[in-house]
Amino acid sequence: MIDLDILKSLILKNDKKIVLVVIDGIGGLPLDIDGKTELETAAKPFLDELASRSICGLTEAISPGITPGSGPAHLALFGYDPIKYQIGRGVLEALGIGLMLTPQDLSARANFATMNEENIITDRRAGRIPTEKNQQLCSLLQEKISKIDDCEIIIRHGKEHRFVVIFRGEGLSDELTDTDPQKEGKKASLAEALNPKAEKAARLINEFVRRANEILSPHSPANTILLRGLAKCPQIPSLGELYGLRPAAIATYPMYKGLARLVGMKILESCETIEDEFLTLQKNFAKYDFFYLHIKKTDSFGEDGNFAEKVNVIIQVDSQIPILTKLKPDVIVVTSDHSTPALLKGHSWHPNPFVLCSPTCRPDDVREFSESACLKGGLGRFPAVEAMPLMLAHALKLAKLGA
Amino acid sequence: MIDLDILKSLILKNDKKIVLVVIDGIGGLPLDIDGKTELETAAKPFLDELASRSICGLTEAISPGITPGSGPAHLALFGYDPIKYQIGRGVLEALGIGLMLTPQDLSARANFATMNEENIITDRRAGRIPTEKNQQLCSLLQEKISKIDDCEIIIRHGKEHRFVVIFRGEGLSDELTDTDPQKEGKKASLAEALNPKAEKAARLINEFVRRANEILSPHSPANTILLRGLAKCPQIPSLGELYGLRPAAIATYPMYKGLARLVGMKILESCETIEDEFLTLQKNFAKYDFFYLHIKKTDSFGEDGNFAEKVNVIIQVDSQIPILTKLKPDVIVVTSDHSTPALLKGHSWHPNPFVLCSPTCRPDDVREFSESACLKGGLGRFPAVEAMPLMLAHALKLAKLGA
Repeated sequence: MIDLDILKSLILKNDKKIVLVVIDGIGGLPLDIDGKTELETAAKPFLDELASRSICGLTEAISPGITPGSGPAHLALFGYDPIKYQIGRGVLEALGIGLMLTPQDLSARANFATMNEENIITDRRAGRIPTEKNQQLCSLLQEKISKIDDCEIIIRHGKEHRFVVIFRGEGLSDELTDTDPQKEGKKASLAEALNPKAEKAARLINEFVRRANEILSPHSPANTILLRGLAKCPQIPSLGELYGLRPAAIATYPMYKGLARLVGMKILESCETIEDEFLTLQKNFAKYDFFYLHIKKTDSFGEDGNFAEKVNVIIQVDSQIPILTKLKPDVIVVTSDHSTPALLKGHSWHPNPFVLCSPTCRPDDVREFSESACLKGGLGRFPAVEAMPLMLAHALKLAKLGA
Repeated sequence: MIDLDILKSLILKNDKKIVLVVIDGIGGLPLDIDGKTELETAAKPFLDELASRSICGLTEAISPGITPGSGPAHLALFGYDPIKYQIGRGVLEALGIGLMLTPQDLSARANFATMNEENIITDRRAGRIPTEKNQQLCSLLQEKISKIDDCEIIIRHGKEHRFVVIFRGEGLSDELTDTDPQKEGKKASLAEALNPKAEKAARLINEFVRRANEILSPHSPANTILLRGLAKCPQIPSLGELYGLRPAAIATYPMYKGLARLVGMKILESCETIEDEFLTLQKNFAKYDFFYLHIKKTDSFGEDGNFAEKVNVIIQVDSQIPILTKLKPDVIVVTSDHSTPALLKGHSWHPNPFVLCSPTCRPDDVREFSESACLKGGLGRFPAVEAMPLMLAHALKLAKLGA
């Protein structure tokens, strides 16, 4: 991959527009050896037509065999080395429930849990208390602990036993250990600083847990909390800074909005349906020069192992493609962050079909948007982190290197 | 390639089984421009059938154009960066004659040689003395020099003029120069420490050579010895440590057993024939979860320039494939460490056909196990060092990276 500083030094500003459509987890597997993948099964005339005017390939999010989470897989697509720019679990969880993070914030994934009279953790998930109970307890904690010393405490409920705590203040390092002992039958740990810079954060967290335990003591089974994945936002240069882009994101799930915000995209409000997302693109097309449009449900149905519904989502996306092509962006990319084969009910390492349509692309023989067809495309198999330089190049936003 | 520490952090233990069959030097070249390679010539219905259920590709052992020795080519297949983990010649020679090495051992390739009365080396190979003579002289040296100071000396004959010396003791560094002047008409060199840590080793080696010269003086033409390739075993984390595997090796030649031992494989005793090797796999299949099965003769006949016999070995291997597939491993890989075209009578840089068969693989259009067919496979051309992450992924032994 090209170094980001070199790439930045080549940037040419122009008015050309790029649309990156990420159909989450679209890549799949056949259910049986002679079968077809989800994408090969779906009737998708518009995507196929797009592929026939495009240069195609398959991307590796990280490297062969490595299954990426959504965080690294998206960062790679946005042009960032996904190993260098790792996003801690606490930050992803906070982004996932829609919290806006500042560079001061230390985020933690938190669980309500149960401890017995000897302070032994007997259930790390507090019997998976209902979300309503979680919400009440988070309100209670937030009301009683809004500040410790000079640090603001922000608490947001998630689902069942899960919530997020943000510690907002000066000088909080994330180089410290979890309080979650990871196993039942043990006491909760104290957060420990892994270097002297993190001592303030460790004291703060241990004091927070102490107070929370007092408040929660009558609320068994949720009579304690466990914190893990303590992390600060990585310092990621924005897409504006790096590439001179005015980028905007259209996504329905908080985590993807959060990831987009992390790299400096403007979040465009959209309703929930795929149709709404494409209408939002249409409405805002004049105002930005880079659009990231994220479709979630292919991944969700893949995770559920629901092959047929994943196929249906692909068909729905296909029906919206004419809205996109009529806008005549200078570069259209349709791809995914990772595969989510219904067969495996989860993310997988299989590479992602990728089509890039632009008047400046050198077309290939691919006439279909599918894993097997893209394999034969002009881009071959390539690291996802190279997608951004390719999009910029096809939009004539990169000067030549050297004379 | 993914960093080994990251890979290690993703390991999930399960009972799934991986079999890696290395048909040494299988890749070849046509003897004339319109001809077929050895692999394309051989009738191999079972390998072709396997390929048709697999994802296929071609591996580069190191990088395009680079011809690997067996050491780096195998380390790459086992997942180790072959440039970072280089194995010194002395160590490979020792492994090659079946010596077990400890982390204390400093190994040297040694030659019997001839020097004249002015101590000038007149023949670096002592007229290629017969192996029997070599054996006698090694016994003599071993008997007279079993120890120097606190270091044990282990001497083993090889073929003709070649033998191996192991210096076993505390504090022996391999950062020192050879005693072999590389050219005739010069005196033998003294071993020189390249840094102070190696001074003990240099003294020891020079004393060894001095004593050997005294003992050998009546045995012209083998009246002196030359040492080169002084090396210690690289500290390679084992496959067990890295990937949580219980690995076993089936190989007939000592060097491959040695390489397998170096990465922590259990060596399964097998007789010499290809049939025996597959029977050994069958017998031990329940006991391990990773098998490396090495076939030597494709390489040997390639080195001899014997196209027809190399083809015959491929046919023999093919006939054993049903034994392998009936065991139903979760992942089967059939590939090679490097190519050995009969046309070139030696290792070559041409990439290696690779097939990976697993219920979790995304199949491609390849219907044949050959260089030209694999070129069109779903894995394309890729570095051999990525084979291990791919095997682990398909055996569902890798968690996702990031959330």
